[in-house]
Amino acid sequence: MEKLYVIKIGGNVIDKEEDLNNFLESFASLAGNKILVHGGGKHASALEKKLNIPTQMIDGRRITSKESLDVVCMVYAGLINKNITAKLQSMNCNAIGLCGADAHAISAKKRKPGPFDFGYVGDVSDANTSFISHLLESSITPVFSAITYDGNGGLLNSNADGVAAGIATTMNALYEVHLIYCFEKAGVLMDPDDDNSFMEEISKTSLEQLVAKEIISRGMIPKLKYALDAKEKGTTNVIIGSAACLPELSKNNHGTCIIN
Amino acid sequence: MEKLYVIKIGGNVIDKEEDLNNFLESFASLAGNKILVHGGGKHASALEKKLNIPTQMIDGRRITSKESLDVVCMVYAGLINKNITAKLQSMNCNAIGLCGADAHAISAKKRKPGPFDFGYVGDVSDANTSFISHLLESSITPVFSAITYDGNGGLLNSNADGVAAGIATTMNALYEVHLIYCFEKAGVLMDPDDDNSFMEEISKTSLEQLVAKEIISRGMIPKLKYALDAKEKGTTNVIIGSAACLPELSKNNHGTCIIN
Repeated sequence: MEKLYVIKIGGNVIDKEEDLNNFLESFASLAGNKILVHGGGKHASALEKKLNIPTQMIDGRRITSKESLDVVCMVYAGLINKNITAKLQSMNCNAIGLCGADAHAISAKKRKPGPFDFGYVGDVSDANTSFISHLLESSITPVFSAITYDGNGGLLNSNADGVAAGIATTMNALYEVHLIYCFEKAGVLMDPDDDNSFMEEISKTSLEQLVAKEIISRGMIPKLKYALDAKEKGTTNVIIGSAACLPELSKNNHGTCIIN
Repeated sequence: MEKLYVIKIGGNVIDKEEDLNNFLESFASLAGNKILVHGGGKHASALEKKLNIPTQMIDGRRITSKESLDVVCMVYAGLINKNITAKLQSMNCNAIGLCGADAHAISAKKRKPGPFDFGYVGDVSDANTSFISHLLESSITPVFSAITYDGNGGLLNSNADGVAAGIATTMNALYEVHLIYCFEKAGVLMDPDDDNSFMEEISKTSLEQLVAKEIISRGMIPKLKYALDAKEKGTTNVIIGSAACLPELSKNNHGTCIIN
């Protein structure tokens, strides 16, 4: 099986132009099959504020009204996706910016209301492996925003970590998938203020213990759940680490490695 | 040579949900190779107004500051492009929403300043025929927003009529191209208030006469120039007509036909 990197880039890196450019240079230099996944939450919240649309979050997840869906669609699938794609093109990476509706690439199911109604939020149910592998075979690099397709003419707002995990687990059937979550920190930290405190490994059992001890904070819990789920479903490597260390992360020489 | 429809849909149709849905149903039903091109000017101006970004137009063309480029990128390549794509998917049309940067599909040159500086505005210079024909051969229908690529990491705002003409003239090398400009009127009208007054044919010479007599208004002049240019460069059929009459337009049974 050929190797495939599925790499998710976090919002705090996207927000800093220099960090983003450095990351994209590393990403463009990575040889072989690769897919980039991004969200971009802070840009969306800033635009909502300017438009007087209330930003409502529960456990770090956005409650998505119709107005809010339009905003994330504009920001994620338009502004961020197309600018990243244009930058990658200039770095000799033949990128194509996509959302889930494009060629029915990523399907999601609208989350059922209760205990909270998240509105137009969807959880990834499937990825179009035949279309995505066709692009990869043509040396085209998909760049996915976290906007997905409900299968019935509508768009949904998805968690970008979940989109990356969903793509990884579906593509496992065809590739040896390496899923890398890149963000502004060195990995999963024992002490959130000390970048040297990153754990080299984390398992489902150790996650439960760390959550019970409140060492792992709320924002990291869903990310780790997606990461553990992808690992359980057969993803070869799942790594969480610094966007500035992508070359090392791709060799599994840095960051936090998810183990069964 | 196989037939290829390049169809541009105007902003006034996009603005009315029922008209847009009816048009998309007709578009989805059209058999064979097809490409959709759209802009969406009014949505962008409305968002600029909400964000207190001044909208500046010269002869119906938007002067595009960096802030304004971000807005059109969000609205055209994000909101409108992805919603049209999702709707087409639900109508059994395997659409993919793209801008010029995606797989370097549509290149444009930034317009030189003077007599006006239009800012981040580009005129289409080339289309990636190999990539686009590859999609068509896979029964995928490209939906292009009027955001193009400058070849150097940057996006540009292009006239959607010009994007459609640029795609048509480049794809002429591989297909028998039928370029159809769909909008809210029945064709090029002798009397702008009478939809029955549409001309069946228009040539370069008759355009010059009608412009001199001020029968053809300012907004129609660039559209007709792009249409005439596409016809001169070998496009088999160039038609201007009503979005509600797409089936007839596709058979060259309605609207205004551009002749040499």
